[in-house]
Amino acid sequence: MEKQFTEHLKKINGYNEAISLLYWDFRTGAPKKGADLRSETIGILSSEVFQLSTSNEFGELISSLESKKDELDSVMRRSVEEARKDYDLSKKVPPEEYKNYVVLQAKAESVWEDAKAASDFSMFQPYLEELVASTKKMIGYWGEKNGSPYNTLLDQYEPGMTTEVLDDVFGKLRDRIVPLVKQIQDSQAKPETDFLFKQFPKDAQREFSNKILEQLGYDFEAGRLDETVHPFMIGINRHDVRITTKYDEKDFRTAVFGTIHECGHALYEQNFGEELSGMPVEDGASMGIHESQSLFFENFVGRNELFWKNNYELLKTHAPEQFSGVELDDYYRAINESKPSLIRIEADELTYALHIMIRYELEKGLFNGEVQVSDLPKLWNEKYEEYLGIRPANDAEGVLQDVHWAGASFGYFPSYALGYIYAAQLKNAMMKDVPNFDELLEAGQVAPIREWLTKHVHQHGAMKKPLEILQDATGEGLNAEHLASYLEDKYTRIYQL
Amino acid sequence: MEKQFTEHLKKINGYNEAISLLYWDFRTGAPKKGADLRSETIGILSSEVFQLSTSNEFGELISSLESKKDELDSVMRRSVEEARKDYDLSKKVPPEEYKNYVVLQAKAESVWEDAKAASDFSMFQPYLEELVASTKKMIGYWGEKNGSPYNTLLDQYEPGMTTEVLDDVFGKLRDRIVPLVKQIQDSQAKPETDFLFKQFPKDAQREFSNKILEQLGYDFEAGRLDETVHPFMIGINRHDVRITTKYDEKDFRTAVFGTIHECGHALYEQNFGEELSGMPVEDGASMGIHESQSLFFENFVGRNELFWKNNYELLKTHAPEQFSGVELDDYYRAINESKPSLIRIEADELTYALHIMIRYELEKGLFNGEVQVSDLPKLWNEKYEEYLGIRPANDAEGVLQDVHWAGASFGYFPSYALGYIYAAQLKNAMMKDVPNFDELLEAGQVAPIREWLTKHVHQHGAMKKPLEILQDATGEGLNAEHLASYLEDKYTRIYQL
Ligand SMILES: [Zn+2]
Ligand SMILES: [Zn+2]
Repeated sequence: MEKQFTEHLKKINGYNEAISLLYWDFRTGAPKKGADLRSETIGILSSEVFQLSTSNEFGELISSLESKKDELDSVMRRSVEEARKDYDLSKKVPPEEYKNYVVLQAKAESVWEDAKAASDFSMFQPYLEELVASTKKMIGYWGEKNGSPYNTLLDQYEPGMTTEVLDDVFGKLRDRIVPLVKQIQDSQAKPETDFLFKQFPKDAQREFSNKILEQLGYDFEAGRLDETVHPFMIGINRHDVRITTKYDEKDFRTAVFGTIHECGHALYEQNFGEELSGMPVEDGASMGIHESQSLFFENFVGRNELFWKNNYELLKTHAPEQFSGVELDDYYRAINESKPSLIRIEADELTYALHIMIRYELEKGLFNGEVQVSDLPKLWNEKYEEYLGIRPANDAEGVLQDVHWAGASFGYFPSYALGYIYAAQLKNAMMKDVPNFDELLEAGQVAPIREWLTKHVHQHGAMKKPLEILQDATGEGLNAEHLASYLEDKYTRIYQL
Repeated sequence: MEKQFTEHLKKINGYNEAISLLYWDFRTGAPKKGADLRSETIGILSSEVFQLSTSNEFGELISSLESKKDELDSVMRRSVEEARKDYDLSKKVPPEEYKNYVVLQAKAESVWEDAKAASDFSMFQPYLEELVASTKKMIGYWGEKNGSPYNTLLDQYEPGMTTEVLDDVFGKLRDRIVPLVKQIQDSQAKPETDFLFKQFPKDAQREFSNKILEQLGYDFEAGRLDETVHPFMIGINRHDVRITTKYDEKDFRTAVFGTIHECGHALYEQNFGEELSGMPVEDGASMGIHESQSLFFENFVGRNELFWKNNYELLKTHAPEQFSGVELDDYYRAINESKPSLIRIEADELTYALHIMIRYELEKGLFNGEVQVSDLPKLWNEKYEEYLGIRPANDAEGVLQDVHWAGASFGYFPSYALGYIYAAQLKNAMMKDVPNFDELLEAGQVAPIREWLTKHVHQHGAMKKPLEILQDATGEGLNAEHLASYLEDKYTRIYQL
C-alpha cells in the first residue's frame, strides 16, 4: 500500500517537474512565438496532475493508509495527512464548478491587466464580485475552518492561522510602526541616496550577485541563477532549486536584495531533510514560513551593517565610480532608507507590513460581509492615508496594483507580513545559540547562521505546522514584539530619532 | 473521429514537448545534482507517451480513419499512414520483449562507454551480438520489408531505401572519391592551416555565430542558440526550434560550421507548412532529407568561397590577430582542407562518405549473415586501409568510435551519406531556378536560396517520401553524379590537381 502510494506520488512529481521546467523556461528565455503552444502543453500536463491527484484510486490509497495510521512512520503519517488535505480540497468541489472557477480566474487576470492599464477599477469590479461570490461558494464545499469563512482561506496558506491571532499581532505591530513612520518623516537626518541610482552595468551586477550567493551557501550544483522580469525561486526537483533575478542598471538594489531574498527561499528547499524525498511533506511548512526564510536573509543578513562591512569593498570593485567617496555608514543608511510609498512591492522593510495590513483588513471585510467590492477603491485610499499618510492618485497605483485578487488568492497577503514576524522571532532565538551572529557576518562566515535555520526550519519541510516550527525554535507563539523592537532600534539609529 | 484523433495527438505532442525541454535543459545547463531525478522524470513521461501511442483506443481511431480514407484531406490521410506505421512498429512486438530490448540498449550503451574508454572490443562484443540477435528477432515481428532484413531497418530511417539502391550509388561515389583522395595526398599544393588553431575567444565566436544565423534566416523569435558538449537541433514545439553549438577556443571551425549545420536542420523545422500543425507529418521526411538540409547549409553555403567573400571581413573583426595577413583564398583553402582521418565526426566533406560506406557494408553483412560480430574489428581496420589508406591503432579509434550500434540504430548510418547526395542533387536543381546563387551568397542574400528549399523541401514535412521529394524537386531519382562532380571540381581547384 505504501509502495503504491509512493509510486503514485512519483508520477505526480514527475509531471510537476516537467510543468515547473516548462514554466521556468517560459520565464527565462523561451522564444516568444512558441508561447501559445507552450501554454497548451502546461495546460495538458496540469490537468493530468489534477486527475492523478483526485482519482478515486488515489483516494482509496489515502483511506487505507489512514486506517493503519499507527503503523506508519512519521514522514508517511504526515504525508498522508497532507495528501488528505489536498485531496479533499480538490475533491469536495464538483469538477465542473472547479473548472469554471479556474476559468474565471484566468479571465479575471486578463481583465485585471486591462483595468490596471486603464487605471479603471469599474472594469474589474464585476469580475472581482464574481470571484468573491465563487470563493464563498468554494468555502461552502470545503467546509468552514476555525470558525469563519475567511479563516478557511487563511488556513490554506498558513495552516492554523486565524483572524483572531492576526488582528492581535497586526494591531500591536501597527501601533509600533505607524508612530515610527511619522517620526522618520519629521527627522532632519535623512540619508543621502543619489549614488544608489547611478549606472551599474548588468554583467558586474550578475558577477557580484553570484559571489554573494556563494557566500550565503547557495549550492550551485543544485541550482542556477537566471534573469527574469519578475524574480522568483522554483524547485524543479529536490536537487534542482533555481532562482531568478532582475537587473536594473539604474538601481542595483533590485538585483542584489532580490537575489538575496530568493536565495533565502532556495536555501529552505535545498536543505529539506533527505528523508522527505518525493513525499508531500517535502515542501515549505507554509507561505509565511517560506517568506520568513527569504526575509531573514534579505533583512537580517543583507541589510545588516556588518554584512556590508564585509562586502562593501567587494561591491565597490564591481562599480568603482558609483561608490567613490561614499562611506560605509552612508551606504548602509542609504540602502535602509524608509519612505511611505504606494506600491507594495517597492516598499521598504519598515512600511511593508502596513501595505499588508490594509489588504488583510479589506479581504477580511469582503468575506465577513462588512465590505462590498464596490467600496474597495474608497476604503483602500482612506487606509493608505491613515496608515502611511499618502493617497493613491488613481486605481492603478491603488487597489488595482496587485494580481492576487484576480487569481482568487484571498488569504495569501497576510503570509508576507507573517514572514517578517517569524523572521524576527527566529533571529531573536538564534542569538541565544549563535551569540556571535554579528561577528560571523562581519567575517563572511554565514554557515553557522544557515545551519541554525536548517536545523530549526529547513530540514523539517512540512513535517510541522508553522506555529509548531515557531514554538519549537523559539519557545514562543506568534509575537510581534521582536520585529517591532528590531525596527525601532534600527530606524532610531539610522534616522537619529 | 478526426477530432478524437487530433485530440489524442495533442496530448502526445504535449508530453513530447515536455520531454524535449527536459532533455534540452539537461544538456544546456541543468544543475548536476538534479540529474538522477531528471532521468526518472524523463522515464515517467516517455513511458506515458509509449502507452498513449500503443493504446487500443488509439489503434481503433487509426483503423476507423483508415476505413474512410477517401474522405480525408491529404494531410489527414498521410498522418493516418504515419500513425499506422509507428503504431504497428511498437505494437507488433510483445510489450515485455520490447521493454527488454530497450533495457538491453541502455545497458549496452553503458558497456560501450567503458569498452571505448578501455579500447577493448571484446568487452562490448557479447552485447553487440545480443543486440544483433534481438534486432533480427524484432524484424521478425515487424515483418520483412523490401525483400531483406536489413532493408527493413533502412526503411525505418529512409522510407523506401534498399541495399540495391545504396550499393549502386555508394559504389559509384566511392569510385570517384577514392582516386581523388589519393591525388590529394600526392598533391604539392597543400593549404597552410596553422592560423586556424589560434586562440579565438568564446564570446567572440558566439557573437559571430549569432550574426551568421541571422544572415541565414534562422528565426530567433522561434528559437535560440545555446552551448553544449555535443551540438544538436531540437524542436521543442513548432515555433520553438533550438540549436546548440560547441565553442573550441583553439579551433573556431567547430562552432562556426557546427552552428551552420544545426541551422540547416532548424530551418527545415521552422518552415514546416502551417497546415501540418500538430500532425505526425509535421516532421522531417527522413533522416537523410533532414541531413541534406544541414549539409546544404554547412557545405554549399558555409564552405563556399563566395559566402566567405562576404563574411571574411566580419570574421576578422571578431578575431583580428588570428587572421591578420591571411588572404581570403588561403583562408578558403584552409577551411576546406581534406585529409584521411580515423574519426567519422571529424572527417571533412570529401572523405566523410567513405566512413559511412564502411559502416554500411559491415551492418549489411551482419544482417545478411556474411559478417560475424567477432570479425568486426578486423574488417573495420581492413576497410579503412582500403578506402582511406590509414589504419586505426586500436578499437577506440576504430570499431568502437560510434555509439549508434550500442543503441541498436542499425540502418541509420547510410542516412548521413544520403544527406550529402541529396544536398548535391538539390543544389544542382536549384541552379536552374536560382542561377545567381553565387552572386546572392556574395551579397549575403540567402533568402532566395532558403525559400527555394522551403518550397521544395521544408514545407512538405513528411507529406512526401524522401525519393518523392527528390523526384519532385530535381526531376531525378537518387544520383551520386552531382555530388561526385561537385567534389571533383572543388578539390581539383583547391589542390591544383
Ligand atoms: Zn519571497
Ligand atoms: Zn546533422
